[in-house]
Amino acid sequence: MATLGLVEYKNASPEVRAVYDEIMATRKTDWINNFWKAIAHDPVTLKRTWNDIKQIMAPGALDPLTKEMVYLAVSVSNQCNYCIASHTAGARKAGMSDAMFKELMAVVGMANESNRLVSGYQVEIDDKFKT
Amino acid sequence: MATLGLVEYKNASPEVRAVYDEIMATRKTDWINNFWKAIAHDPVTLKRTWNDIKQIMAPGALDPLTKEMVYLAVSVSNQCNYCIASHTAGARKAGMSDAMFKELMAVVGMANESNRLVSGYQVEIDDKFKT
Amino acid sequence: MATLGLVEYKNASPEVRAVYDEIMATRKTDWINNFWKAIAHDPVTLKRTWNDIKQIMAPGALDPLTKEMVYLAVSVSNQCNYCIASHTAGARKAGMSDAMFKELMAVVGMANESNRLVSGYQVEIDDKFKT
Amino acid sequence: MATLGLVEYKNASPEVRAVYDEIMATRKTDWINNFWKAIAHDPVTLKRTWNDIKQIMAPGALDPLTKEMVYLAVSVSNQCNYCIASHTAGARKAGMSDAMFKELMAVVGMANESNRLVSGYQVEIDDKFKT
Amino acid sequence: MATLGLVEYKNASPEVRAVYDEIMATRKTDWINNFWKAIAHDPVTLKRTWNDIKQIMAPGALDPLTKEMVYLAVSVSNQCNYCIASHTAGARKAGMSDAMFKELMAVVGMANESNRLVSGYQVEIDDKFKT
Amino acid sequence: MATLGLVEYKNASPEVRAVYDEIMATRKTDWINNFWKAIAHDPVTLKRTWNDIKQIMAPGALDPLTKEMVYLAVSVSNQCNYCIASHTAGARKAGMSDAMFKELMAVVGMANESNRLVSGYQVEIDDKFKT
Repeated sequence: MATLGLVEYKNASPEVRAVYDEIMATRKTDWINNFWKAIAHDPVTLKRTWNDIKQIMAPGALDPLTKEMVYLAVSVSNQCNYCIASHTAGARKAGMSDAMFKELMAVVGMANESNRLVSGYQVEIDDKFKT
Repeated sequence: MATLGLVEYKNASPEVRAVYDEIMATRKTDWINNFWKAIAHDPVTLKRTWNDIKQIMAPGALDPLTKEMVYLAVSVSNQCNYCIASHTAGARKAGMSDAMFKELMAVVGMANESNRLVSGYQVEIDDKFKT
Repeated sequence: MATLGLVEYKNASPEVRAVYDEIMATRKTDWINNFWKAIAHDPVTLKRTWNDIKQIMAPGALDPLTKEMVYLAVSVSNQCNYCIASHTAGARKAGMSDAMFKELMAVVGMANESNRLVSGYQVEIDDKFKT
Repeated sequence: MATLGLVEYKNASPEVRAVYDEIMATRKTDWINNFWKAIAHDPVTLKRTWNDIKQIMAPGALDPLTKEMVYLAVSVSNQCNYCIASHTAGARKAGMSDAMFKELMAVVGMANESNRLVSGYQVEIDDKFKT
Repeated sequence: MATLGLVEYKNASPEVRAVYDEIMATRKTDWINNFWKAIAHDPVTLKRTWNDIKQIMAPGALDPLTKEMVYLAVSVSNQCNYCIASHTAGARKAGMSDAMFKELMAVVGMANESNRLVSGYQVEIDDKFKT
Repeated sequence: MATLGLVEYKNASPEVRAVYDEIMATRKTDWINNFWKAIAHDPVTLKRTWNDIKQIMAPGALDPLTKEMVYLAVSVSNQCNYCIASHTAGARKAGMSDAMFKELMAVVGMANESNRLVSGYQVEIDDKFKT
């Protein structure tokens, strides 16, 4: 159950509890998933990671659903099983339908295929694509 | 300039030209980028890849802009330079603004970071996330 | 339990036992972990891999702890669960404290994030960095 | 020269200049490398990334040289050319000798090899390694 | 048991059954493995993926055994556990002996090692290798 | 031109020359490619890497052409440009025709696509595939 174990709320320091509270408030939920409990052994990393995610995943030029789907797409491409499970849940909560999920997976698969055709055929960048 | 060279339109077989014509018509453009010219040495792969991409990238439950940004996100995560250049252009054409690009990159970076924190801390999947 | 099963000491050939004996002597331990038992079905690979690891992981310009932590960092970045488990144990045995582990994970996460920001923004190598 | 171009100091906003100034002061150098100039188009990402790196790479349980070598090891494993060039320079500045570099590369290569032997032989985690 | 669950033959639509029937006929087997049952929730992806695999894995300039071993090699390199299990079975069925498996793994491991030595040492492409 | 530069034959130590001589004799060629010249700064790594590759790539249960194509497939999947260039040359020398190359690339692309569909749909290993 994680390298250093999980820090449950009842055993957490005030510093860690403050982050847990903010996560639950922001996500409108009453529980904390294992990722946070695992890294809470390092309060500095916990706090930095939460602050980064809160800033990055907030609505902006991209809406939260799009951001969650991109996060899931990268996790699938990297084959991180925990991340796939947690961000599938996150994307569903943000509004991803089954139909969206299916199309998302198709795009991730296709991108991974064509990425290798490109490198295998040693394709050079077109002048028109150069920035 | 690609392992087998590039198949220019003027030297292409009718079979390859038919795919090139369809690519240009679908994308409302008058040129073919190097990826297609490189794999055109294998008309079977050219035709299959184009048909797959045409099907996968068509508007559906996800709009074309979202699909292009996901394609770009995966290519960035995989660090495929050609694909990054071509899909940055593709996403822009589909409507990606500078602000969207910046947020997209932030999500891709964050996902790659947290994917490793998860594996490094050996986090197990929460029961609530199990399907 | 591994594609070809595990070769236990009592069933091992003299050739394989000799490698097992050397592993246990070098590591000052009385057991062999599954990795070696799995590849022992191929004594050539077993012997070559052990000799390589013995040479590479020996103290030199870098001390064994640093080498174990680098091995763990790469395994985390590659998301190889077995390797993460075994090299976390290896690094701890070589002296990695909890505090070191936490900082190591933070660096691995950060490197994976910035690697993608670099490719996503298509950053070119500074002349000063060219060798 | 990067997707959005490079933000040179003379054209930078006060907000961006403040980060550049801090980078140069912290690193005891008088120039800014392209990575920062490329992401400076997104001051939020620039500031967050710099603050994260400053925190993560500061001396702690691990010394700066070890951290720079781990960063380089991950970048080599991910095959990010820009990152390899910049962090080779960074690690040298922190004290990495040629001998250290050579041993570091040997460990990174070996870890990547054994990671695949492990997955290819479908090796299961030893009970002793379970946390 | 898969994000959307598994589509069993008895509950499958005629469209999905037709693909299942073709898979079983082509592979001379009487069962369908979980991969197909998982993606069958998206009949468009099921059909496209099956048609692609059928075309790509058919005997041609490369024989089916070589193709299955290459598929396995890539899956091992990507560390996709399901794919390793299924394509080890597939390669065995196509004729892969234990001796072939062992040599295959050795090559995959070596390639992953030398790929990183190449990037770590920043080796430039020899003119003789340029296409 | 490589982090530590290239060790040309005329400047090489007798130890390095001996490896170069053996490479040229084994490969029936009169030149040394940059990979070897780059790692020759570390004669221990040079010697170990050459001995490993010589052993692994020798004809056995798999013929040299199959081994070279697997090496190329892994390098393409990893997107290592130098390795793709050098192993395309190596595979051609071992007998890879254009038709074989095309089919090889198609398999590598397909494997990368299906690897992600598998992880994205969170497919569990079939009991029949368990070893």
